[in-house]
Amino acid sequence: MFDPVEKLKEFIRHASVSTDPKAKEGMKGAQEFVSGLLRSLGFAVDVVHTDLHPVIFAQRGSNPAWPHVVIYGHYDVQPADPLALWKTPAFEPTIVGNRIYGRGAADNKGPLLTIISALAQLLEQDPQLPLRISFLVEGEEEIGSPSFPKFLERYAGKLREADFVFLSDTALPNEQQVVLTCGLRGLALFDVHVTGAKGDLHSGLHGGVLRNPIQALAEILATLHTPDGRVNVPGFYDAVLDVHDWEREELKKLGADEKAYAEFLGIDTFYTTPGFSPFESVRFQPTLEFNGIGGGYQGEGTKTVIPSKAFAKISCRLVPNQRPDEIKKLVMDTIRARAPKGVKVEFVDQHKGEPYVVVPPDRSNTPKDQSPILARGFRATHAAVTEVWGRPPLYLREGGSVPIIADIKRVTGLDSVMMGLFLPEDNLHAPNESFNLDVMKKGIETARRMFAHLARG
Amino acid sequence: MFDPVEKLKEFIRHASVSTDPKAKEGMKGAQEFVSGLLRSLGFAVDVVHTDLHPVIFAQRGSNPAWPHVVIYGHYDVQPADPLALWKTPAFEPTIVGNRIYGRGAADNKGPLLTIISALAQLLEQDPQLPLRISFLVEGEEEIGSPSFPKFLERYAGKLREADFVFLSDTALPNEQQVVLTCGLRGLALFDVHVTGAKGDLHSGLHGGVLRNPIQALAEILATLHTPDGRVNVPGFYDAVLDVHDWEREELKKLGADEKAYAEFLGIDTFYTTPGFSPFESVRFQPTLEFNGIGGGYQGEGTKTVIPSKAFAKISCRLVPNQRPDEIKKLVMDTIRARAPKGVKVEFVDQHKGEPYVVVPPDRSNTPKDQSPILARGFRATHAAVTEVWGRPPLYLREGGSVPIIADIKRVTGLDSVMMGLFLPEDNLHAPNESFNLDVMKKGIETARRMFAHLARG
Repeated sequence: MFDPVEKLKEFIRHASVSTDPKAKEGMKGAQEFVSGLLRSLGFAVDVVHTDLHPVIFAQRGSNPAWPHVVIYGHYDVQPADPLALWKTPAFEPTIVGNRIYGRGAADNKGPLLTIISALAQLLEQDPQLPLRISFLVEGEEEIGSPSFPKFLERYAGKLREADFVFLSDTALPNEQQVVLTCGLRGLALFDVHVTGAKGDLHSGLHGGVLRNPIQALAEILATLHTPDGRVNVPGFYDAVLDVHDWEREELKKLGADEKAYAEFLGIDTFYTTPGFSPFESVRFQPTLEFNGIGGGYQGEGTKTVIPSKAFAKISCRLVPNQRPDEIKKLVMDTIRARAPKGVKVEFVDQHKGEPYVVVPPDRSNTPKDQSPILARGFRATHAAVTEVWGRPPLYLREGGSVPIIADIKRVTGLDSVMMGLFLPEDNLHAPNESFNLDVMKKGIETARRMFAHLARG
Repeated sequence: MFDPVEKLKEFIRHASVSTDPKAKEGMKGAQEFVSGLLRSLGFAVDVVHTDLHPVIFAQRGSNPAWPHVVIYGHYDVQPADPLALWKTPAFEPTIVGNRIYGRGAADNKGPLLTIISALAQLLEQDPQLPLRISFLVEGEEEIGSPSFPKFLERYAGKLREADFVFLSDTALPNEQQVVLTCGLRGLALFDVHVTGAKGDLHSGLHGGVLRNPIQALAEILATLHTPDGRVNVPGFYDAVLDVHDWEREELKKLGADEKAYAEFLGIDTFYTTPGFSPFESVRFQPTLEFNGIGGGYQGEGTKTVIPSKAFAKISCRLVPNQRPDEIKKLVMDTIRARAPKGVKVEFVDQHKGEPYVVVPPDRSNTPKDQSPILARGFRATHAAVTEVWGRPPLYLREGGSVPIIADIKRVTGLDSVMMGLFLPEDNLHAPNESFNLDVMKKGIETARRMFAHLARG
């Protein structure tokens, strides 16, 4: 059996930034690392080429009587910039205390290796383990999985006969309490570009004559939220599902501490949808965020230009049953309608993802329409979590997005059991990302027991 | 006599970007170029060291009975970025048709060399030319001349006995009509930084909980103008001087064409202070512009962060009698008061400059309080312009800023005669800056005649 921590170091060293055309070598290295590892465990591995980064499709077990679990993960990571804010090199894994630092440590290299390590242990003990396992490990999750739907459609025949999807690409709210994620937000992303004059202008010779595109952009963006924290786009909330009472109750059991959360974020005031606590708002409500803004001179000192152009990068997190295409259209139409005279507004479409929700078994006041085998998946995970962590998991929706979960549901009909392993302090998508090695150890044991329960039936 | 165009090429090749600490060599080269050139014309040259870039102080003529003209110019230039938009290399002068392209060609290397070339011609013909000339050529104009006031105070004794300042660092509205600039806008510049959470955050895990600093910044900036084009800061206009009737009349003589100006800018709607035409607004009204904005992810594709920080670079152009320090305080106080909860607002002060106005002789309805010798300076220039360009100059205020003109007035009491030579299409402070060589030729002849008239008395 390999050493999971050593393997994780090796995995992190491959700088697999899927959005960066210059990161080809890192992408290839990470893909070959996962493919090789699965091959070494006896999986038949297909590296399925796509328009951009390949999907790893790996299978073991052929007895149709065995349960069939699909495991999803991704080998790509977010960009590491701003590099100056990293305390250790982003792609040189560094262990400090019980944490391993490096881009991708928690999203998704650590959690994916946790599941692979659990299977490695089981298969070493019992090479005839009565489980069919199919791995789907993609390289485009951080850029919205553009190739994945096409891949799914191509492989739907092999996947539809499976029972459920198991993955770990969601959050662990604290080191004591595991959550089985039963809802994810969707995504709708695009850039807005505002153009004023046809070139940059001297602000002395021409200032006072025309509308500055930075001013126009600010004026547009400032209309998109109400002072009390709602998105100010007509129709934006129309499709939002009501929250079930059991969901609010389950969230209360988490006992999350608002004061500690504010301290963790470093803010003195929350800004949420009215009527929702911060913990509710992030799970049950959609957002419209500005991920970036740029225009004009940004260097040291001054440059007295009226820039020709300014832009902002916008992302909406969506909840069931908002549709990304509809939301994009609503927001773009609103921006167009609110743009002041004298500037031109254009959009660059980016990716999108549908929101997802699954109703877990045994939830009161909810339809119990799960397939028996999905219920078995939830129960095996529930039992394993309870044994290893000393308390049962909670069933909560999460604020993050794993858009392919909705794609898998749409194309193959399969629902997902999502066991979160990354902690809030893991700094996902930010400098100094890390993964807790104690969590990894318990995660391996939990996944091992889950697969064992499932195999025993 | 040297070839002015060849000398200008040499001057442009020195990449003298005063704001860029990496441009030391270019700064030194440009300074040595000007010092060497003036020495070769018989000037006694002092390179006066300051905290940053030296001032060149050069003198010729010692007879106290001769008129004493101070000539101002600067050897530094704006940064050349965005470099990708230049059609020819920014620091490799390139002649296309009757234009020479390169950063600094028009601001201020071409116009400064125009004056030097005129003197070179005169001194070649008459080495005993009965004029005292003092050159002040600084290297910090584009960064707000931080060292210049201290230099002026040090050299005030040598300057106070002078008669007036002559310079060419203002605009020529078109190839037919010279303007003697009798007013300049001042400047008040600072950056505003907005901080939300203590680090960048994952927009899925934390979106819907806190105020995004880009949103807060946009909301603040959007309050700073009214929809009809005024600066929306209480007290901003309190000190603004009324425009004289003769100023509006003089401007009408310019016959500027709004349609052609809109086409030149590439806009379909002007956005001016209400009650002012574009040509009036830029000369007689103050502005508040955003020269740059930045925050979060600005690269290709997407990065779903809630950034920790965002900033904007703000510059106000001021008119008499607005005071830069008072305006900075008004705008900063307004921004502070309008900042939403949940973010921190901080300022980085940048440079400033007082506005300037001089009432030229022979203007009706204005006090005629010029010193006889200043009036002689204006009249010599008026005569030279009329001879060379076939029509008299107009006397207009300009939208740009040369803050040291107000500093010189304050420290030495000297007023300035400003003969503009750069055209609107010269792209100052923007990519593809150029200088019109026909204008340069006529400018040399005009300056030569002006100095000759003055010497003749």
